[in-house]
Amino acid sequence: MGRTTVMRPVVRVDRGTARESFDTLVAEEPLELRVGGVPVSVTMRTPGNDFELAAGFLLTEGLVARAADVRTIRYCTPETQEYNVLDVELAPGVAPVDATATRNFFTSSSCGLCGKASIDAVRTRSPYSVADDPLRLSPAALAALPPRLRDAQQVFEATGGLHAAGLFDARGELVCMREDVGRHNAFDKVIGWAALEGHLPLRSHVILASGRAGFELVQKALMAGIPALAAVSAPSSLAVALADEAGMTLVGFLRGESMNVYAGARRVTFTK
Amino acid sequence: MGRTTVMRPVVRVDRGTARESFDTLVAEEPLELRVGGVPVSVTMRTPGNDFELAAGFLLTEGLVARAADVRTIRYCTPETQEYNVLDVELAPGVAPVDATATRNFFTSSSCGLCGKASIDAVRTRSPYSVADDPLRLSPAALAALPPRLRDAQQVFEATGGLHAAGLFDARGELVCMREDVGRHNAFDKVIGWAALEGHLPLRSHVILASGRAGFELVQKALMAGIPALAAVSAPSSLAVALADEAGMTLVGFLRGESMNVYAGARRVTFTK
Repeated sequence: MGRTTVMRPVVRVDRGTARESFDTLVAEEPLELRVGGVPVSVTMRTPGNDFELAAGFLLTEGLVARAADVRTIRYCTPETQEYNVLDVELAPGVAPVDATATRNFFTSSSCGLCGKASIDAVRTRSPYSVADDPLRLSPAALAALPPRLRDAQQVFEATGGLHAAGLFDARGELVCMREDVGRHNAFDKVIGWAALEGHLPLRSHVILASGRAGFELVQKALMAGIPALAAVSAPSSLAVALADEAGMTLVGFLRGESMNVYAGARRVTFTK
Repeated sequence: MGRTTVMRPVVRVDRGTARESFDTLVAEEPLELRVGGVPVSVTMRTPGNDFELAAGFLLTEGLVARAADVRTIRYCTPETQEYNVLDVELAPGVAPVDATATRNFFTSSSCGLCGKASIDAVRTRSPYSVADDPLRLSPAALAALPPRLRDAQQVFEATGGLHAAGLFDARGELVCMREDVGRHNAFDKVIGWAALEGHLPLRSHVILASGRAGFELVQKALMAGIPALAAVSAPSSLAVALADEAGMTLVGFLRGESMNVYAGARRVTFTK
């Protein structure tokens, strides 16, 4: 699309001296997602791979049950020349999307709202179980993932402003990499790519986040059947709790040869 | 509340050796916000300063027009013991909140959806103008902000997992600092604090983000009347465009004595 970066004038200041220059920024634009003509969400995202983003969002938020429920995705170009509105047509016989479902995903009417209820809601909705996935990973294999993700990142180099998600197979080969101004969007694009390619569930794969790992990223990985999530930075309490309950392996602070395994340590083959 | 961090068991791996230990994680829990009993949003956040988060969210998303529109905020404790559901009572005569407004904030029915429409929507909704704010900042004063924010951060030290927002006055004194697992929540808490204290609009203040600056953060600062936003990392294209159009000063990559001024450079007093 040629719209992933934007040049802007900038005043660079260093030790009190200022000079005018130009800087390359990561592009951010709104994307409205409609299903059958009904608006479902507006997301700020980096343009590009928008069909993947739409498919991944619908699946990982539990708005559609399976990839085959999506029949077509198209830009509403007659209405806007900006390629910022998408309409998804569902397959015949698929029930309309409940546009309020995303916001209420975590709500359990019986017991109020807490971390446990959020975990139960995601586990109930996920069509896949990852607990028995036979994937095994050595610390050396895990350590090799971040450099491979960085090598594949094109826009971050230029802007410093992007989150990345990388999907790796059991041998540590990079299968898909996507960048976005929003970390959840990068995950949705990777998972949406896999969905559109017919690769779900992503058994025996690892997904790597360039930053922190919150509940939402673990949720998205689980909804795609991915048994292991690694993050360069810290996980949150609820991310660890969900991974633990779902039998997913969660690695944080993956830096060089050191890392913390917060859940599913049985998949990491330590040499003692 | 004592719930901002959580201890979890962890397997620490370093150069192939593994040992069991404990790690302190940033707490993440869902918060459901209701207005007059009607659910408006569910946000994943770090518990603490929840009333500020609610007030800041309602104001910066344009769901209420002014701080005085909020009469009371209380936990729905009979319903849940988890302190994760808040109900906001509006002042007499204030129109009910449109629960769909957040999602549609950026949508302009006339011209479709694009960055320009998003900027216009925010500018139309903001009750304050920052363009004529007389604030002036020297590069040295800006350079002093990140160390002050880090000194004030308590939870990040322990977990490495938190975003922070710091509000500074024109002399560079830290007025309010809040941390959260979500960067937009940290902004909402700071702005909500100011709203509940009767300090809006925040004329001649600077707000500092510990990470990147996207459109949403510039929007929130603008909705609070803050004339300058500084970020330790990169801004997005739409963040710069909104700041530029609104007359806000936007500084990025604020590290030591070097920084990039992306908008409103007239407020930065360079010594040439």
